[in-house]
Amino acid sequence: MSVPIIHPLTVRYMEVDAQNVVFNGWYFTYFDEAMGTFLRERGLSYPGMIASGYDVQVVHSEMDWKSGVRWTDDVAVAVSTARIGRTSFALDFELRRNGSEVTCSARNVYVVIAADGSGKREIPPSIAAVLGAPSPLRPA
Amino acid sequence: MSVPIIHPLTVRYMEVDAQNVVFNGWYFTYFDEAMGTFLRERGLSYPGMIASGYDVQVVHSEMDWKSGVRWTDDVAVAVSTARIGRTSFALDFELRRNGSEVTCSARNVYVVIAADGSGKREIPPSIAAVLGAPSPLRPA
Amino acid sequence: MSVPIIHPLTVRYMEVDAQNVVFNGWYFTYFDEAMGTFLRERGLSYPGMIASGYDVQVVHSEMDWKSGVRWTDDVAVAVSTARIGRTSFALDFELRRNGSEVTCSARNVYVVIAADGSGKREIPPSIAAVLGAPSPLRPA
Amino acid sequence: MSVPIIHPLTVRYMEVDAQNVVFNGWYFTYFDEAMGTFLRERGLSYPGMIASGYDVQVVHSEMDWKSGVRWTDDVAVAVSTARIGRTSFALDFELRRNGSEVTCSARNVYVVIAADGSGKREIPPSIAAVLGAPSPLRPA
Repeated sequence: MSVPIIHPLTVRYMEVDAQNVVFNGWYFTYFDEAMGTFLRERGLSYPGMIASGYDVQVVHSEMDWKSGVRWTDDVAVAVSTARIGRTSFALDFELRRNGSEVTCSARNVYVVIAADGSGKREIPPSIAAVLGAPSPLRPA
Repeated sequence: MSVPIIHPLTVRYMEVDAQNVVFNGWYFTYFDEAMGTFLRERGLSYPGMIASGYDVQVVHSEMDWKSGVRWTDDVAVAVSTARIGRTSFALDFELRRNGSEVTCSARNVYVVIAADGSGKREIPPSIAAVLGAPSPLRPA
Repeated sequence: MSVPIIHPLTVRYMEVDAQNVVFNGWYFTYFDEAMGTFLRERGLSYPGMIASGYDVQVVHSEMDWKSGVRWTDDVAVAVSTARIGRTSFALDFELRRNGSEVTCSARNVYVVIAADGSGKREIPPSIAAVLGAPSPLRPA
Repeated sequence: MSVPIIHPLTVRYMEVDAQNVVFNGWYFTYFDEAMGTFLRERGLSYPGMIASGYDVQVVHSEMDWKSGVRWTDDVAVAVSTARIGRTSFALDFELRRNGSEVTCSARNVYVVIAADGSGKREIPPSIAAVLGAPSPLRPA
C-alpha cells in the first residue's frame, strides 16, 4: 500500500458562500490542484508531461460530502491512485480536516490523450511509474 | 414522463482554460444555477423555501464528460427529477450543445434539512410538488 | 451623447460570500462579460476581432463601490465609451440595481494589440466605429 | 520605511484563460488573500478583528498591469500600508515574478465599519498598530 500524497490547502474567503461553508463547486478545483501536486511530488511535472506528448482529460468525477469546511479550517487534500487501466486511470481524493476527519471523498477518472489532439493513448511508462500500485481511498 | 426544464447558459470567457474548453470545475456552478431555475420555473423560489423553514444540501455529485464546450458555443442545461426518497432527492442534468448534443451528464443528490440547522427533514409537500414524478436523464 | 449598452446580469449564488454580498472580485468578470455584449451589440464579435488580426488587453482598472449587491437583486451593467486614444481606449461601467441605483462604478483601459503577439497597434477603423463618440459615465 | 509583507502565491491552472495568462479578475482575489496574510503576520486575525467588533469593506480598487503571469510562474504578492485616514486606509499590492519583476501594481481603499452593520467607525488602535507607518508601493 502506497501512502497518499498530501496537498496542503488554504480555503479562500471568496470560496465560502452565504451558508458560511465552501461552495461545493470549488472542490473540483481543489482536487485538480492536488492532482498537480501528486504528479510533481512523484517526479512528473504537468508541463513535462505535455512536452513528452501526453495530456490527460477528466471524463468522470464523483464526490460525496459529509460536512462543509469553513474559511479558517485546517484542511488538506490526500491523493492516491485508485485504478489503472489501458488508456485511463482513476485517482481518489479526500478533503481532510485537522489531519484526519474526511469531510469529502472523491474519485476522478482521467483518460490519457495525445497532446496534439489526435486522441486516446495507452498509458505510457512515464505516467504508469508515477501512478504506482493502486491504493484506493474509496470503496470500489 | 415530465419534460426537463431548460436553463439557458452563457459560457464566460474566464471559464475557459488554457486548453480552450471550459474548466470542468465550472460545471457544478452551471448545474447549481440550473437547479435554481428548475425550482423557480416550477413555482418554488429558493428564498421562499428558506423562509418556509427548509434548505437543501448537496451530498453527492457525479458527472461524465463526453467533450468540452468552448467560449461561444450555444449551450443550455436540461434539469429533470431523477429520484425522490424520504429525506433526499436526486436531480439529473445535461449540458446540451446546439439543443441536442449532450456533452456532459450529471446527477446531484440533495438532502432536505431544516433551515435553522437542526438536521434532516422529510421532504415537505411543497418541495415534493415541485419535483413531480421522476423522469431520469441518466441510467439508474 | 450615445446611450450606454445594457448587459443583463444574474448574480450567481456562489458569487455571494459570507457577508451575504457579491465578493468584489467578481465585478471584473461582470464587466468583462458586459464588454463582450457591448462589442457584439455594436456589431463586432470578439472572435471576429481576433480573426481580423486585433486583440485587446486590459492595462488599467479602477472600481468604486457604494454598496454591495445580493443574490436575488435585480441588476444590470451599463457600458459606455469613456475615452479614445491612439492605441488605447477606456470603457466605463456601472452596476445598476433596479434599473437606476449605481452600486459600483468602474473604468477599464484597454490597449489594442496585434493578435499574433507582435505588440501594440493603432486603433483600427473597425474598432473605432464600434466605440463611437465618448460618453463617459464617470467623472474625468 | 517598513518592509512589505510577502504573500506566497500559487497560480491555479483554472485561473489561466485561453490567452494562457491569468484572467485579470483573479488579481482581486490574490490581493484579498494577501491582505489576510498581511493582517495575520502583523498579529491581527481577521476573525479576531470581527470578534472585536470591527470589519473592513473595500470601497475603491485600482490595478495596473504591465504583463500577464502564467501557470507555472514563480510569483508572490507584496503588501504595504499606503495611507491611513480617520475611517479609511489604503493598502498597496505588487504581483512580483521571480522575486522582483512587478507585473501588476494595485491599491485598495478600505473603510472600517462596525461588525454589527451599524456603519463607519474610526480606525481603532488595534488596526492602526497593525497598519504601521505608511510606506506606499505606488506613486501618490
